[in-house]
Amino acid sequence: MNFTREKKVLIVGLGLLGGSYAMALTRKDYSVRAIAHRQETIDFALQRGIIEKGTTEVTKEFVEWADIIVFGLYPHIFKEWIKKYQSYFKSGAIITDVTGIKGNFVREIQGMLRADVEYIPAHPMCGKEVSGVENADDKIFAGANYLVTPTEKNSKEAIEICRDLGWILGCYRVVEIDIDKHDEVIGFVSQLTHCIAITLMTCNEEEHLEKFTGDSFRDLTRIARINEIMWSELFIDNKQALIKQMKEFSAQFNKIEELIENEDAEGLKEIMRRSTERRKLFDK
Amino acid sequence: MNFTREKKVLIVGLGLLGGSYAMALTRKDYSVRAIAHRQETIDFALQRGIIEKGTTEVTKEFVEWADIIVFGLYPHIFKEWIKKYQSYFKSGAIITDVTGIKGNFVREIQGMLRADVEYIPAHPMCGKEVSGVENADDKIFAGANYLVTPTEKNSKEAIEICRDLGWILGCYRVVEIDIDKHDEVIGFVSQLTHCIAITLMTCNEEEHLEKFTGDSFRDLTRIARINEIMWSELFIDNKQALIKQMKEFSAQFNKIEELIENEDAEGLKEIMRRSTERRKLFDK
Repeated sequence: MNFTREKKVLIVGLGLLGGSYAMALTRKDYSVRAIAHRQETIDFALQRGIIEKGTTEVTKEFVEWADIIVFGLYPHIFKEWIKKYQSYFKSGAIITDVTGIKGNFVREIQGMLRADVEYIPAHPMCGKEVSGVENADDKIFAGANYLVTPTEKNSKEAIEICRDLGWILGCYRVVEIDIDKHDEVIGFVSQLTHCIAITLMTCNEEEHLEKFTGDSFRDLTRIARINEIMWSELFIDNKQALIKQMKEFSAQFNKIEELIENEDAEGLKEIMRRSTERRKLFDK
Repeated sequence: MNFTREKKVLIVGLGLLGGSYAMALTRKDYSVRAIAHRQETIDFALQRGIIEKGTTEVTKEFVEWADIIVFGLYPHIFKEWIKKYQSYFKSGAIITDVTGIKGNFVREIQGMLRADVEYIPAHPMCGKEVSGVENADDKIFAGANYLVTPTEKNSKEAIEICRDLGWILGCYRVVEIDIDKHDEVIGFVSQLTHCIAITLMTCNEEEHLEKFTGDSFRDLTRIARINEIMWSELFIDNKQALIKQMKEFSAQFNKIEELIENEDAEGLKEIMRRSTERRKLFDK
């Protein structure tokens, strides 16, 4: 384990994910401090004992204390923060984040970052339909995949530390994945599913659907309760990959519609058998 | 309660749902017998004590014993059964079913049925991704909606008995709904969701998706493990309503794609806010 207990951790942005990181790290006896936008956030985190110290003011003293800095901010705020405050980092600091998309965004930050500080991008595949430190919960990591997306700029040591962080959080699996491939896969498994959920929740004006629904509809729309500020930004930042996935989805959806239109039971059964086979892999 | 314990219940077709009905009714001290296709099904149900008697042979004696007959068969087999054996029913018998679509199908059966026997259509909004009496479980009714779809041919008494059945099973809510409206709503909340799930599971050739997925993808594809014989039949039988729903879904999905293409964050946020508002109703 390269991520030893001597490493001091600063969380910047103490929302649902940042708060959950703080909780997991504190539970495992790491020193965790935080910078947040609102004083109530800090007060709540202190009261719950998930950070040892916190502030709403970004000062050199507070930032240079940390060996590892985890950013839990919206992508565009993360970028602005780096521009404004990167001179405060301790030389040799390692920064990482929880941002669900990578690609261009990571290259921009790595491109502007000081040479003596390293940014290793990563994020856990988990979350909740609610936000804020009040809803933080380190149980969200149980069963979750933790994705690390190094670029050619990353050192072996930073990758190791970042992988360790995934295990410390309590994730089920730590996976390294090529950064462009990552955005494609995320466009599919995460963003496309959110697009589908919000479509389903808004394409029909029927009132009181809750009286008629079964678990299927409830499951498919759980994520239709969505943080619109974050997700609209993520969708647009990963536009190219997401639209490619949406088009592939539509093509297959139209094919199924055609089979129903033509009452082609055999064609439908074939797709359903393939669907069943592929889905079984998830229940192993 | 019109569905008193004196009423004798025959289940025809002892699969996942038929078996779960048997379990719930037996637990509440009703006399339950069953007709199934395979002897192993009967043996299993007898051994588990969820029926008092069972047979694979359809005889007049066995059928005329029952006051209430519940059909848990595929739609086309249900129709064939009625044609072939309806002379066996006791005069005054009430029959009902678990079929997820109604409309034309119900009218066909009511049209051919003896005048002294009444068919009151209904079904619970629940199920599992697995089939067969071995997977029967009367806990599936907890939290489920039970839908009754009477036609002009139904008597007040039969409707009452059928509603009682929903409560006896342990359903959370018993809802009466117009039969044509029913197929439209089911096309939306149940069939469209299954179409989406199988599309999502088959539109991408990526291997080992399970390494990258979070709960969103898992939730949206839970029902992608699907009984292809039953669902291809249900889709085609409810073709008109389902295709209408698929087209509405596609229109909204395309609209969201366009907003992303145009980087229209405000337009996306507006849809997401509506989605969040509508979804909240389900968590009450």
